[in-house]
Amino acid sequence: MRSPFERRLEACQRRLERTDAALAVLVPGPNLTYLTGFEESPSERHLLLFVPRVGDPVVVAPTMYDAQLRTLPIETLAVRLWDDDDDPLEEIEAVLAELLPAGDGDPGSSQGDDAPTILVDDRMWATFTQDLRECAPAATFDLASRVLEDLRLRKDDVELEALRRAGEIADRVSLEIRSRGTDLVGRTEAALASEIERLLAEYGGGDPAFETIVASGPNGARPHHHSGDREIERGDPIVLDFGAFVDADLEDGTGRYPGDQTRTIVVGDEPADKYDRYERVHEVVREAQRAAVEVVEPGATAGAVDRAARSVIEDAGYGDEFVHRTGHGVGLEVHEPPYIVADNDRELEPGMVFSVEPGIYLEGEFGVRIEDLVVVTEDGAERLNESPRGWETGDNVQ
Amino acid sequence: MRSPFERRLEACQRRLERTDAALAVLVPGPNLTYLTGFEESPSERHLLLFVPRVGDPVVVAPTMYDAQLRTLPIETLAVRLWDDDDDPLEEIEAVLAELLPAGDGDPGSSQGDDAPTILVDDRMWATFTQDLRECAPAATFDLASRVLEDLRLRKDDVELEALRRAGEIADRVSLEIRSRGTDLVGRTEAALASEIERLLAEYGGGDPAFETIVASGPNGARPHHHSGDREIERGDPIVLDFGAFVDADLEDGTGRYPGDQTRTIVVGDEPADKYDRYERVHEVVREAQRAAVEVVEPGATAGAVDRAARSVIEDAGYGDEFVHRTGHGVGLEVHEPPYIVADNDRELEPGMVFSVEPGIYLEGEFGVRIEDLVVVTEDGAERLNESPRGWETGDNVQ
Repeated sequence: MRSPFERRLEACQRRLERTDAALAVLVPGPNLTYLTGFEESPSERHLLLFVPRVGDPVVVAPTMYDAQLRTLPIETLAVRLWDDDDDPLEEIEAVLAELLPAGDGDPGSSQGDDAPTILVDDRMWATFTQDLRECAPAATFDLASRVLEDLRLRKDDVELEALRRAGEIADRVSLEIRSRGTDLVGRTEAALASEIERLLAEYGGGDPAFETIVASGPNGARPHHHSGDREIERGDPIVLDFGAFVDADLEDGTGRYPGDQTRTIVVGDEPADKYDRYERVHEVVREAQRAAVEVVEPGATAGAVDRAARSVIEDAGYGDEFVHRTGHGVGLEVHEPPYIVADNDRELEPGMVFSVEPGIYLEGEFGVRIEDLVVVTEDGAERLNESPRGWETGDNVQ
Repeated sequence: MRSPFERRLEACQRRLERTDAALAVLVPGPNLTYLTGFEESPSERHLLLFVPRVGDPVVVAPTMYDAQLRTLPIETLAVRLWDDDDDPLEEIEAVLAELLPAGDGDPGSSQGDDAPTILVDDRMWATFTQDLRECAPAATFDLASRVLEDLRLRKDDVELEALRRAGEIADRVSLEIRSRGTDLVGRTEAALASEIERLLAEYGGGDPAFETIVASGPNGARPHHHSGDREIERGDPIVLDFGAFVDADLEDGTGRYPGDQTRTIVVGDEPADKYDRYERVHEVVREAQRAAVEVVEPGATAGAVDRAARSVIEDAGYGDEFVHRTGHGVGLEVHEPPYIVADNDRELEPGMVFSVEPGIYLEGEFGVRIEDLVVVTEDGAERLNESPRGWETGDNVQ
């Protein structure tokens, strides 16, 4: 039986065939992890996966990765190693000579024999694309997202299972924090952020998927606030935005998927007097979030989801205070397509997963954001987060 | 008085003048941090710094970074923002039109008016270089390291002070771990790695500069071993490779510099019988490290440093077991030029900082690596690490 990675590589090759590109070249990062289960940080050493339109994939890598690469569940993968005292460009030139259509052959290509198209990883560093341009001066270059974006957009069952688990962990932590109610008074944002990350790990999460946001009182007006030493007061609204990675259940190889949800709670029975617009604003954001999720179904556009949230907020008179897009796709990357932004005409398809997170930010006062991840189903949307969306805490949680 | 960042930007512009490039374009990462003190992770949102050969630098950035960018100590920096519902390419096209030599002017350029050269950050993602190529189809592209590498290679006093502090912190932790002697027996590699990271923080370090390596017994034969659940035994050799970042003492802006040192110790009075080659191998590596540092002085080549270490190890009959380069530069990046590799003819200059870390790796047995960071001085080398290099532990530390 073929591994999920072998199936993904074949799907990539079918798409190369359709776009008439000669090969795709990937570097350590989400695309390479998606195709092979290999996970490493980008580094200055040449580590490149070549996926030709036809034939077996080849990875050129520093010798130190030998053992790691040979355990990948891809039977046909050829591993070509270079040592610190070799010039990796020689190996890369040799691989390109083997994989690119020869000058006198390949009549099937409509690109013309002299200009094969090479698709490079969207995240490939310029230093490596420059090397490829030098090694293949006749080639035309474009981005690997041309063949990989559509593949990665539609999550398979293994990916969805991981995303659901990440959602459940985030929900559980969200509910636990909320239930503490006035016990949160006097704690700093940073201390609460640490506590959230500790709970995420305790409930089975891995590393935080992004910097945990605890934005209390006026700090909530900054969408990307860095949790600091402000002490939480009774009656403060608090924006809580967090999630942890979880590993996908893959027999070999790796792949981790994030949780990402936001709730805006109030510590105590009601917002302090100075936050007199809070209840109304929270209601507007909650309604905007509901309206946007309502629109999600196959065939609707990403832009329509953004506009659904935006129009609720505009109608309430807060259009200028909703300063960001409505959402972003999630998968191996915490931010990836589809981007839920007004002018995005991409039609939603079953298996796409993205955040729906409208917000209103009142400078000097407070902010409110409510976020769930949703997956597009055959006939609508499934929310991956189900913890309470109201602002009530402690004994008042509904 | 100009800030260090203003001085660095001017030095960058002088080099652009010399190379006759029209401008450099930088993205979040070490180059941008070096030039502006701005520190953020790379992301899918367009954030680009344009440094023209002549005139004021311009940054194009998402609105959410407004406050952060306006506090940078660079008086002449123009900040141009885009919102999630704007197309950032429009802003980028406008900036390029302003900064690139006009088609009918700039007689001073020897490149010809129609082909200005744009230097892109070596770490710029392909998705952004493709955008620049579309916005400036007549331009020639090359790498920003052409103007920035030499600048960043020679560390200034602020940078050296941070690197010295990082070295002292690593040394202190190294000595403390070593002094525990047989108390280490029974602990797992992973637990010891955590303890090391806790101590680095306690002694004033920031985040670990890289994944802390605790490689015990046969695991030491893998240069990049991931610390695992193997329990340390009496008589085990252990490779300990770690360091923490420290913040440079800059009035505004940021910049963090790593510690990076390796010692290979033995838990107990002597290596276990099965490690019968250990004492000799440790002696060879220590001598190779000493010989390599001995060669360091202005005018010597990076390659000569590598060869000095390598010849000691080859003469002892372990040439095939020294499987990596002798070292790498350190600065804002943990791995950066100069690379200490046999065929690198670059001449050393005062202010360069790099690791000297020969090793011998005996598959199935053990490994030994000894590493110090060194800075090239006016007439030789200064080691940034001075903790004991022997293998003795506990009461036997010398």
